[in-house]
Amino acid sequence: MLPVIVVHGGAGHIPRERSEKSMSGVCYAARAGYSLLQGGASSMDAVVEAVIQMENDPHFNAGRGSVLNVKGDVEMDALVMDGKTLASGAVSAVRNIANPVQLARLVMDKTSHACLTAEGASKFARAVGIPEVSQESLITEYARMRWTKNLAPDANPVESQMGKMGTVGAVAVDREGNIACATSTGGMLNKMEGRVGDTPCIGSGGYADNQTGAVSTTGHGEAIMKVTLARLILFHMEQGQTVEAASDVGLAYMKSRVGGLGGVVTVDPQGGWGARFNS
Amino acid sequence: MLPVIVVHGGAGHIPRERSEKSMSGVCYAARAGYSLLQGGASSMDAVVEAVIQMENDPHFNAGRGSVLNVKGDVEMDALVMDGKTLASGAVSAVRNIANPVQLARLVMDKTSHACLTAEGASKFARAVGIPEVSQESLITEYARMRWTKNLAPDANPVESQMGKMGTVGAVAVDREGNIACATSTGGMLNKMEGRVGDTPCIGSGGYADNQTGAVSTTGHGEAIMKVTLARLILFHMEQGQTVEAASDVGLAYMKSRVGGLGGVVTVDPQGGWGARFNS
Repeated sequence: MLPVIVVHGGAGHIPRERSEKSMSGVCYAARAGYSLLQGGASSMDAVVEAVIQMENDPHFNAGRGSVLNVKGDVEMDALVMDGKTLASGAVSAVRNIANPVQLARLVMDKTSHACLTAEGASKFARAVGIPEVSQESLITEYARMRWTKNLAPDANPVESQMGKMGTVGAVAVDREGNIACATSTGGMLNKMEGRVGDTPCIGSGGYADNQTGAVSTTGHGEAIMKVTLARLILFHMEQGQTVEAASDVGLAYMKSRVGGLGGVVTVDPQGGWGARFNS
Repeated sequence: MLPVIVVHGGAGHIPRERSEKSMSGVCYAARAGYSLLQGGASSMDAVVEAVIQMENDPHFNAGRGSVLNVKGDVEMDALVMDGKTLASGAVSAVRNIANPVQLARLVMDKTSHACLTAEGASKFARAVGIPEVSQESLITEYARMRWTKNLAPDANPVESQMGKMGTVGAVAVDREGNIACATSTGGMLNKMEGRVGDTPCIGSGGYADNQTGAVSTTGHGEAIMKVTLARLILFHMEQGQTVEAASDVGLAYMKSRVGGLGGVVTVDPQGGWGARFNS
């Protein structure tokens, strides 16, 4: 079958001066992943490659370009899942790593666990030879500006979240019909130290199952977790709904039940795909 | 309606010399939660109280009595979820706290987040006045003996896991028909530093929804996560299955798809309940 990859760079309003660069970054990431798929690579290789490209691009809230927590630090979350085995790997609140999605994959491939957090994740990174990077190298001027602005006494925290709710992610089906997802994020602007959002939480930040499809989510993490959005959408697909209908039903449910906004990319085993949002 | 609480003290084989104390600990916890419910307390108050009793009891793998990680340290995970609002609170890899489930509840009640991890969770605990306890006070002679035994060159890590796979938890429905769940664990013996299992992961370690019911899980965490077991069972209940049938179908699926063993306690909004396991 023809392989498919679908990529997202976060939901929410993107300021006009940044939208062109966001768009070209998403296209670049999708092409990078797709060229691997065309060469016969696995869907896991493709989604990780696409997400690495967006982590390296300072215009996204993941890797370099991540938003800052309340202390002005970068703590990142990432998840990968393999639809063939249902194996997954995740890291949460990890620091000083250029590519959390790569570390998440190593958690899946090299340990018997599915998630490592904080200092434990850093120790594992050192053990497997992932270089430590300075926090400064992950912080952009734009992220620092938004953090500083949010410290002002008259700051509007809701407005501050605008323009960068997201999280980046990808879903793919390869030639063999294997399905995978990957999601990576710097989280929420001004989050508390140690806050873990939906991204590294299997079923919320993403889910992949060769028998049904895959979803990668973005948006208001705490709302996504309340409805385990990725798994919810796949349940609707198991009930016979199309990719687009299931994604819309899942997002509409999140909005009506808990007032949550967000977006998803979704694929099914036949290569049908959707990119839907309610934000 | 008559309130209901169902409590579990972990799945897996329990050595005979410990089974009597485990049984009396579970009964004590259930009675403590039930007496709150009879007095008109909420299901959230009841499940937290029941789990606190088991965290304080050294015969369970949660709070005092937790298994040790590969370094001989105690790192604990806990989750609570409120079925009325779908709000949840969790802590992962937290240290030096007597009652992680209480801290998880404070994450839900006092922050805009759903999960805090590691040092960030400890800082929050200090900020809300939860006393720090020494690690020694959480470690029992039995936990230390099992850890030491597992370090021996001829150790059988699979056998070492026996007798204490679990995790403690509770689900309840109160007089108002509100539903809640709580789960708490020391995790897996000899786990890596920073390993996060299913317990604090919403949809895996537990899920509660007034419209459907609640589940608290125990067993092999990585397998539970692969199938988001708690949410899976509730999807089967949404499709019209009874508490017992849905629990059995979920556990059987976990066994056949990923070879996972575990157990669950489940309630529905009418007070129907089940305690099922495949281990």
